[in-house]
Amino acid sequence: MAEFDLVIKNGKIATSSDVFDADLGIIDGRIAAIASSLDNGKREIDASGKFVLPGGIDAHCHFDQPTGDDSIMADDFLTGTRSAAYGGTTTIIPFALQMQGQSLPDAIKDYHLRADGKCYIDYAFHLIITDPTPQLTGQDLPAAIADGYTSFKIYMTYDSLKLNDRQILDLLATAKKEGAMPMIHAENADCIDWLTSQLEADGKTAPFYHTQARPALVEREATHRAVTLSELVGTPVLIVHVSGKEALEQIRMAQNRGIPIYAETCPQYLFLSGDALDQEGFEGAKCVCSPPPRDEANQKFVWRSLINGTCQIFSSDHAPFKFEDDAGKKVNGEEAPFSKIPNGIPGVETRLPLLFSAGVMEGRMDLTRFVALTSTNPAKLYGLYPQKGSLTVGSDADIVIWDPDKHVQINNEILHHAVDYTPYEGIDVQGWPVTVISRGDVVVDYGELIGKPGRGHFIHRTKPLETLHGLL
Amino acid sequence: MAEFDLVIKNGKIATSSDVFDADLGIIDGRIAAIASSLDNGKREIDASGKFVLPGGIDAHCHFDQPTGDDSIMADDFLTGTRSAAYGGTTTIIPFALQMQGQSLPDAIKDYHLRADGKCYIDYAFHLIITDPTPQLTGQDLPAAIADGYTSFKIYMTYDSLKLNDRQILDLLATAKKEGAMPMIHAENADCIDWLTSQLEADGKTAPFYHTQARPALVEREATHRAVTLSELVGTPVLIVHVSGKEALEQIRMAQNRGIPIYAETCPQYLFLSGDALDQEGFEGAKCVCSPPPRDEANQKFVWRSLINGTCQIFSSDHAPFKFEDDAGKKVNGEEAPFSKIPNGIPGVETRLPLLFSAGVMEGRMDLTRFVALTSTNPAKLYGLYPQKGSLTVGSDADIVIWDPDKHVQINNEILHHAVDYTPYEGIDVQGWPVTVISRGDVVVDYGELIGKPGRGHFIHRTKPLETLHGLL
Amino acid sequence: MAEFDLVIKNGKIATSSDVFDADLGIIDGRIAAIASSLDNGKREIDASGKFVLPGGIDAHCHFDQPTGDDSIMADDFLTGTRSAAYGGTTTIIPFALQMQGQSLPDAIKDYHLRADGKCYIDYAFHLIITDPTPQLTGQDLPAAIADGYTSFKIYMTYDSLKLNDRQILDLLATAKKEGAMPMIHAENADCIDWLTSQLEADGKTAPFYHTQARPALVEREATHRAVTLSELVGTPVLIVHVSGKEALEQIRMAQNRGIPIYAETCPQYLFLSGDALDQEGFEGAKCVCSPPPRDEANQKFVWRSLINGTCQIFSSDHAPFKFEDDAGKKVNGEEAPFSKIPNGIPGVETRLPLLFSAGVMEGRMDLTRFVALTSTNPAKLYGLYPQKGSLTVGSDADIVIWDPDKHVQINNEILHHAVDYTPYEGIDVQGWPVTVISRGDVVVDYGELIGKPGRGHFIHRTKPLETLHGLL
Amino acid sequence: MAEFDLVIKNGKIATSSDVFDADLGIIDGRIAAIASSLDNGKREIDASGKFVLPGGIDAHCHFDQPTGDDSIMADDFLTGTRSAAYGGTTTIIPFALQMQGQSLPDAIKDYHLRADGKCYIDYAFHLIITDPTPQLTGQDLPAAIADGYTSFKIYMTYDSLKLNDRQILDLLATAKKEGAMPMIHAENADCIDWLTSQLEADGKTAPFYHTQARPALVEREATHRAVTLSELVGTPVLIVHVSGKEALEQIRMAQNRGIPIYAETCPQYLFLSGDALDQEGFEGAKCVCSPPPRDEANQKFVWRSLINGTCQIFSSDHAPFKFEDDAGKKVNGEEAPFSKIPNGIPGVETRLPLLFSAGVMEGRMDLTRFVALTSTNPAKLYGLYPQKGSLTVGSDADIVIWDPDKHVQINNEILHHAVDYTPYEGIDVQGWPVTVISRGDVVVDYGELIGKPGRGHFIHRTKPLETLHGLL
Repeated sequence: MAEFDLVIKNGKIATSSDVFDADLGIIDGRIAAIASSLDNGKREIDASGKFVLPGGIDAHCHFDQPTGDDSIMADDFLTGTRSAAYGGTTTIIPFALQMQGQSLPDAIKDYHLRADGKCYIDYAFHLIITDPTPQLTGQDLPAAIADGYTSFKIYMTYDSLKLNDRQILDLLATAKKEGAMPMIHAENADCIDWLTSQLEADGKTAPFYHTQARPALVEREATHRAVTLSELVGTPVLIVHVSGKEALEQIRMAQNRGIPIYAETCPQYLFLSGDALDQEGFEGAKCVCSPPPRDEANQKFVWRSLINGTCQIFSSDHAPFKFEDDAGKKVNGEEAPFSKIPNGIPGVETRLPLLFSAGVMEGRMDLTRFVALTSTNPAKLYGLYPQKGSLTVGSDADIVIWDPDKHVQINNEILHHAVDYTPYEGIDVQGWPVTVISRGDVVVDYGELIGKPGRGHFIHRTKPLETLHGLL
Repeated sequence: MAEFDLVIKNGKIATSSDVFDADLGIIDGRIAAIASSLDNGKREIDASGKFVLPGGIDAHCHFDQPTGDDSIMADDFLTGTRSAAYGGTTTIIPFALQMQGQSLPDAIKDYHLRADGKCYIDYAFHLIITDPTPQLTGQDLPAAIADGYTSFKIYMTYDSLKLNDRQILDLLATAKKEGAMPMIHAENADCIDWLTSQLEADGKTAPFYHTQARPALVEREATHRAVTLSELVGTPVLIVHVSGKEALEQIRMAQNRGIPIYAETCPQYLFLSGDALDQEGFEGAKCVCSPPPRDEANQKFVWRSLINGTCQIFSSDHAPFKFEDDAGKKVNGEEAPFSKIPNGIPGVETRLPLLFSAGVMEGRMDLTRFVALTSTNPAKLYGLYPQKGSLTVGSDADIVIWDPDKHVQINNEILHHAVDYTPYEGIDVQGWPVTVISRGDVVVDYGELIGKPGRGHFIHRTKPLETLHGLL
Repeated sequence: MAEFDLVIKNGKIATSSDVFDADLGIIDGRIAAIASSLDNGKREIDASGKFVLPGGIDAHCHFDQPTGDDSIMADDFLTGTRSAAYGGTTTIIPFALQMQGQSLPDAIKDYHLRADGKCYIDYAFHLIITDPTPQLTGQDLPAAIADGYTSFKIYMTYDSLKLNDRQILDLLATAKKEGAMPMIHAENADCIDWLTSQLEADGKTAPFYHTQARPALVEREATHRAVTLSELVGTPVLIVHVSGKEALEQIRMAQNRGIPIYAETCPQYLFLSGDALDQEGFEGAKCVCSPPPRDEANQKFVWRSLINGTCQIFSSDHAPFKFEDDAGKKVNGEEAPFSKIPNGIPGVETRLPLLFSAGVMEGRMDLTRFVALTSTNPAKLYGLYPQKGSLTVGSDADIVIWDPDKHVQINNEILHHAVDYTPYEGIDVQGWPVTVISRGDVVVDYGELIGKPGRGHFIHRTKPLETLHGLL
Repeated sequence: MAEFDLVIKNGKIATSSDVFDADLGIIDGRIAAIASSLDNGKREIDASGKFVLPGGIDAHCHFDQPTGDDSIMADDFLTGTRSAAYGGTTTIIPFALQMQGQSLPDAIKDYHLRADGKCYIDYAFHLIITDPTPQLTGQDLPAAIADGYTSFKIYMTYDSLKLNDRQILDLLATAKKEGAMPMIHAENADCIDWLTSQLEADGKTAPFYHTQARPALVEREATHRAVTLSELVGTPVLIVHVSGKEALEQIRMAQNRGIPIYAETCPQYLFLSGDALDQEGFEGAKCVCSPPPRDEANQKFVWRSLINGTCQIFSSDHAPFKFEDDAGKKVNGEEAPFSKIPNGIPGVETRLPLLFSAGVMEGRMDLTRFVALTSTNPAKLYGLYPQKGSLTVGSDADIVIWDPDKHVQINNEILHHAVDYTPYEGIDVQGWPVTVISRGDVVVDYGELIGKPGRGHFIHRTKPLETLHGLL
């Protein structure tokens, strides 16, 4: 067997199916061999006592995305991918937003300008469609899908983003025809607006009331509607950032009927609750995101959804805004009413350690499921597989070496994003990514950033609907 | 890298997670390497255009098991494992039946006498507990579990086998304490007896009435009860041979609540219906098995259960009785009333081709799920993993080379069991196991039986409850 | 005891609770006494062998309502109430439609012009709100509710009628504050439009395709949404003309959660199926109504909903268009594509006999439930009770004397509407209203119309939310 | 109109359907007339400001019933019916228990000896079948049903009472054939025994552990099983004393499928929780009953079941044992382990005031539903209707005049049973029965007992299955 560029020795390798002791050899950035013993490596890493996992794929994060007001996202593609890499993530799929009136090719071009040359790790773009003109659905979107932008997001809420049911149906029909995966942010805009009006009329504008303006049934309704639109067109839909029981029940019922509805959840629905928004002064703004965190009973239900297969993927929904900054949570320096606070929380770096610690170390899930949720399933659902998402011969050598014994207390000062807080401040975790490898290059090694900005490649993805059969 | 005893080249390898092109090298009966190219094999098999899959594990089959009447099972461990091997199966877990009044050690000893020295492939035993004395639950069963008999079956029906709820609870408590997996045959005995009396009183004794004596709600009730007993004790239960919608709904509801209920289904619930019993004369006796096959709507629901994760394993429930034989379906030569017909159908050889063809080739499921259902999941649920159930470095080289292009019409004359019929006569399938390898030995190769009886090892299994976290 | 204007002797009286033999005495148009024997009547009717029931209340019918195209409803308030009376109905609640741009007072005034002086029986108006301006929700609707127009209908479909979710929420809030009952036509407009486009693009324009453009899941989605809006505002909603299983399941789940969702179904969902639209030529247009009739399995489910309490009321949704007429089903004389066919079928006269025969005579429901569904419940849900809807002392003497032994074959020629067909042609029923009494006046007696047009009073209704506690 | 023996004037009369102002005239113990004004009464009662309701029917109470140990029920038929009458109840249906080995005729004869000559109000007997010999199912039970003992109870728990599924099926078949209503106490005996053993082995024997030995899932399982047996035989079953969500969900699902499952709940499931058993010393024994009271969330669910129609009847399950007595809760003077404490609590007198106050006065339900749950529905389900259960012409004049303005604090000293405590001590209620009339006789009037023991008649009941169509 040929000489390897890199051999990772003595580790415990895990895929979404298997856990076993073996060495792993890399040639030209790809996995060339997995064997009981490999010795002919130009370089060797000893992974004794460590897990050797597929690098994380964060399929839901926002970097350098315009917000529609005077707030600015704290992370661009440089700081965002730096933070991701430190957290054990080797591929990200942020969003390329088409703004109303903008052509899709222009939107894509714009995001390449924002991202290209800055990323430490590989990246792709989900599209966000806000203006589904006939030109878009008939020409531009099929062309983009053919070019490897094989997923797109639809909003059912937010004035500047939301589409109506007819527009969604047309886009789902395009997705079906072209083989792309549609993602849906499912909250009922009219209900939120109505509740917001009621709350504002009552002078209830503190950050906490964000949770009251977006109760679970508002998410449940939109989820049921999204499921129906999927059934009608006969094509899969992936519901992003599902927050709790009511929406999960709708998704599960659809899966029971055989409808290919996929679902994503995020750390905030496992580790935060509405209490996080119910703080002194403006502090709660730090955790304003949509859907809002719910309560303990819902957290338990979300855990269950990860274990029983209702949710297939676990992403961060990283949407970074500084707290102490005039263009962050306090837009123009104001402690604004909840309806004006930029939505989103940071999390791209803490996603994997949080789930590993509370999931694997506390015995809630097997290591294989951890890998499935954080890497393999997003790769399969979004057309990155088999290039990304597993440790198999022929795949990119995107690998995280994970120390299951390392204890870390999460504090913002140890993180590498550009945000000035973390919602998970003070949480103790066991297990941490110590060496992060992207296409065979060590990018992060025991806290040291080795990779260079711009080394990350843009990934043209395959069409997920051509390979998916049945539910994951 | 050392020389390999055998290298399988150019195949498409599949696990329950991944599908990829690679070569696979075997040393001392175990997988030593998987790599893009392996050349130093003492022997090489070219698997171009073929799938290289983990050998099938049939976790539900009956060989050489006394029946309680004058019927005799057609297959012993020799013909049974021969048929299994021809069908792509490399490990079987038949049952060792404790008869009433018999000690568990005696029962185990008896089955070793029946099996040892006869098997072409590796084997283990599920225990069947019919007489849970304090000696058994307190001493003998824990000892047997410690010795690698780490699963046992409980019947809720059949006079000579059934246990009451209290006995089941005691056994589940033992399973929990000792780490074993309990399997339950869930049908309500009293309901069946009552219906049978009604039917017999009406002169309805033809084989078809077997289906009327065991309607779906009789299975649903027992399934609900089994779920409750599992909840009460707080330990997993695996419901065997689930036949349709009503029982599956109970299982799914339990899984939704986070209860670790596992489920198995079988080919007869996908490919047969009650019509198979509704034939001229005694012909229907060929398909008398319990639970009985249902109808098309239920078949559809069972397919769905394999795809959405409700069922984790797919077994044959091979229970072989000749049709034209005085000790087979016609006990003592008689065409007896349905309630006296030996229950069971053959299927150990046809299990994999049927599921592969209708599942994978017809686009209902991915190849990874086929592998999960037929090999990886049974291995994990019954303590065979990682020795069996996957193609990973360090695992036994139990491998089936599968030709996805081979078209076969199933007829009894091409099968290798000792039964004189197959319920699947005339079904055309695409895809067939062409080479079957057990611990690195080719056992079947293009229709030729190469292995010798007795080469199969008995496998002492690990305790599944020590490794399972959450649902599969 | 005083002399009675009228005594009905020897009948079997039924309310929604009780069935008993007694005489009933009327003074000044009201029920003055119910007793084992009453003799002092100025006039007596012998009801031996007959049921004495509260007159039917048809809470869903359209008379003389503009359609938005060149079609004209066949029945005005004269022929409509004539037909109703013949069918055993003594109170109707047709709709007063506010057209876009029209003020609510003008709409109400317009309908009084259409109805006043013409009705044979008592009547009230549901409002239809299509233009919920601040003036309407803040002033005009509260005023109308205070004046006895205590229910209003919201459409989720039809371009000229539909409201968006925000408008619905505002109207529900008004309903809650003012005590009115909101009714919702629940079908998703965007889905229907999208499906219609698909069907038309495929040249599928025959009447039958009406059923394909409005499948059950389109109704299910809107029903789920309506339930959510009700939950959000915390006020009851009544879902009109529910057609089958999928929508009923949503309603039942809401009722299980304690949400006060009420539901109505209609004869077309018990006695017709999609086959009725799948006829030679344009014949199917006769049964074009929305939601469309479903199939046998759904009919069975709808029957069950009447029996287990999911649906509380049974109305006709009489919407009369002639078949052979240039302003009827063939607008402008054309056999138009399904999307241009006026929606609606006649049924005000056949509603009670159909339900009585298939419901009571065939043993599906008690007579008390028949009374509840057709009279008492609509009276309670719409603010007519206790003036209407029961046979109790003090109530209006609106009574139908029903011959349970009379066999009738339904044919259009025996009916008294102005439509030239009935969808129920040829159905044999047992049981027929023989004498119909409105406020003590005999209006129909054994086929003879005795009442005069204009004798019917307009009824100012009470606020249902002030008297309803819990579900019916 | 003839002279009345008694006229009740100026009251607000309620049935399970209607509420209206009228006078009510009684002749020969029956209701002869209901009219706007009746003046010719030999005696008149002025009910101004009062409700005039059908007398309560308590369809679940135990008087003078042997217990199988040394405990003795505190109430016999004299004190029991006295207490019932004071609480507004005019008919009771206690149980006649067939003991093992005893013939059914003997059991019935025995209970007549116990009851005849002692009752203040009318009474009937449910049978309890514990020994379903062929003689019983084939001869004695049909004969008893024909003689008016038209309901019987089946226990799924308690060693001396419980039947197995086969016995239950046989009895249900008899019920179907003969038209009787079977009642089922649904708790899984084996589960309770197993849990009790576990608790006792852990030294957990205080009264509170009674709740831990009978958790909700033990009731859910038996309820599901009872539903299945009902489906299998195709005959109604009434599940008695349903305690909470899990069992109610099973019942509701059955009703959704159209299965005629009826259900009863009791005050203890609305007003008590497990906390009532978790008291200092032996105090908790006062509230030991089966199933045990649950928690607040379950109470809420039980309330909902009364409102949405899941439960049709509301009974006391009065089973009276003194607390300070050597033959009461402390059998032989001992504070025994929970498994030896006599099961049951008193409640025949407090049933109606508790439900009226928390149900009607607090706005949870209409007065009509109160009447349905406490009088009309038990009458219909158990073959007492129309003789009992409503205020209609021809019915027995069993009437309670209810003062909705009277405030009472429940204390044992104001009650008239022979028990030395009430579980509802200290609860304030609004609304109280002030005058209780049985067949036209005033039995209780403003706290004065007027009737004589023995004036109560035994009621031979009709066959409920001959009159019930569909669910109530």
